[in-house]
Amino acid sequence: MMGGPVGFGPEERMNQVLTRQDIDDAAANTSEWVRKTPVLDLHLPVLTIKQDIALKLELLQHTGSFKPRGAFNRILSQKAPKAGVIAASGGNHGLATAHAAQRLHLPCEIFVPEISSPVKVAGIRKLGAKVVITGKRYADAFEASQKRAQETGALVVHAYDQPEVAAGQGTVARELEEQIGSFDVALVAVGGGGLLAGVATWLGDRTRVVAIEPQRIPTLASALKHKEPVDVDVDGVAADSLGARRISAQALEVALRTGVESVLVSDEAIVEARRMLWEETRVAAEFGGATALAALTSGAWKASPGDRVAVIVCGGNTDPSDLK
Amino acid sequence: MMGGPVGFGPEERMNQVLTRQDIDDAAANTSEWVRKTPVLDLHLPVLTIKQDIALKLELLQHTGSFKPRGAFNRILSQKAPKAGVIAASGGNHGLATAHAAQRLHLPCEIFVPEISSPVKVAGIRKLGAKVVITGKRYADAFEASQKRAQETGALVVHAYDQPEVAAGQGTVARELEEQIGSFDVALVAVGGGGLLAGVATWLGDRTRVVAIEPQRIPTLASALKHKEPVDVDVDGVAADSLGARRISAQALEVALRTGVESVLVSDEAIVEARRMLWEETRVAAEFGGATALAALTSGAWKASPGDRVAVIVCGGNTDPSDLK
Repeated sequence: MMGGPVGFGPEERMNQVLTRQDIDDAAANTSEWVRKTPVLDLHLPVLTIKQDIALKLELLQHTGSFKPRGAFNRILSQKAPKAGVIAASGGNHGLATAHAAQRLHLPCEIFVPEISSPVKVAGIRKLGAKVVITGKRYADAFEASQKRAQETGALVVHAYDQPEVAAGQGTVARELEEQIGSFDVALVAVGGGGLLAGVATWLGDRTRVVAIEPQRIPTLASALKHKEPVDVDVDGVAADSLGARRISAQALEVALRTGVESVLVSDEAIVEARRMLWEETRVAAEFGGATALAALTSGAWKASPGDRVAVIVCGGNTDPSDLK
Repeated sequence: MMGGPVGFGPEERMNQVLTRQDIDDAAANTSEWVRKTPVLDLHLPVLTIKQDIALKLELLQHTGSFKPRGAFNRILSQKAPKAGVIAASGGNHGLATAHAAQRLHLPCEIFVPEISSPVKVAGIRKLGAKVVITGKRYADAFEASQKRAQETGALVVHAYDQPEVAAGQGTVARELEEQIGSFDVALVAVGGGGLLAGVATWLGDRTRVVAIEPQRIPTLASALKHKEPVDVDVDGVAADSLGARRISAQALEVALRTGVESVLVSDEAIVEARRMLWEETRVAAEFGGATALAALTSGAWKASPGDRVAVIVCGGNTDPSDLK
């Protein structure tokens, strides 16, 4: 299902180990297209945690999430066909791919399932993409997009499961290290694992990477348990951005190779972390964007004394009404 | 009215010209207490403006505005009496003074007028301050706070009209220059003029400073016209944060001495700038916090080609419900 004329076949993907060089290349590819997002250093006594932390405010990226890094890198790594680009996503990846296509003057089709929020669909359309609403679930829209790509020859931009996409997401960690120097631990939220694969590839040999997932979408935790990616149920407050059904084989490979730690947090902890982030810093994150921080604020994960901890706040496509 | 046992008398204020040294001192005084707020560089084609700009995200400061810089500097410049500190403000300055007092373990009384928002009053109380609700307008609450200060001997922390307060606010510009190097123009919103006085003192001899005010609260524009501070009507969307009745004599002096430019923007332009800021960057500013940007986005002020422009986004104490 992942194949097609311009996608990567499963074998090809499994054989291609993501390297730091891929992320250097992605940074060079994308530097003029993505924002260098700022870092907010928080010192005690903010939050309820006994730790100085650096918040990477990636929610201030174009389209409100880290996703343009991967989308731009995927598109700029290929010779874009006349048919342009195609993706399946009713959320952040759809916005990011539409944005990248618009900036690069390429035609773009985004396939979204019927359940997608009308607001997000409107946002994707506003970026100039053709939106095709089809199928009940994401998997149906994805399948339809693959079929369409085979017909048109458009370049498939996967939401997480392509090496160039993961390499693009890894530039978040590379940029963060440029900004704050070395640090001890990175906390990263996980859905399909594109961000995790990129971040752990960049940092994994010298910095602890902790992968945080909602208890209700444990794609990495389940894969670690079963020693292979397995389907999970997708539910809870962060499902709109972290709601992948299974983690990519590539992300699992990187996680195992670099010793990524897996931590689960409750929906309540995510809701509370998002609220606290707003109250203490006026950063308006989406639930998925507050998930990494929730590990710290809930105590689900504890730093060692003196550790310099970086937290990636990866998205802000939220309805902020409940933050008033 | 501004006097009292520990405040500054008018003569004292008028004779004291704010200097860059005052701001260096303020930076040293406050460095361990205030956040170094991040800068977001925006490049084309964001917003609708043909200009690369640097957004100083001062809304991410403690309590959601720049005000703690001045409050901390005022308090730390004095020997705090046993009675602690006192201020009049139902808004950002009240939150900032209560926060500073809490961090410094000082008693704190905040006088607020009856019209103050219950949410902000609750926020001030949550920071440990005693809140006294009195009088119909800000001026009444202020007068009551002055009387109370004379009884108790508490240190008065004015919202803008004290040299140490203005010097503290000026550290925003000093920090910004440390972060991005020299630049050509700074856009700053004006209410009572504390931020303007500090910023223009720091930058005024080598960087253009443009003061942006809502058309409905033209404290600086009116003072420049009349060659002295005059009362104005206070109204419009930004009244909760920029709603001073007149500019301080000190801010006017600095503005005249350093050649600050004055620009007025409509409420519609402020509303639109705030909405655009959210849509393009996921920064949730209050109306006063989006006022400086509104000069650019509305075209009320135009940069010269090639100018490096910095915009201070000075507050985020907003109900974000309408940003969804």
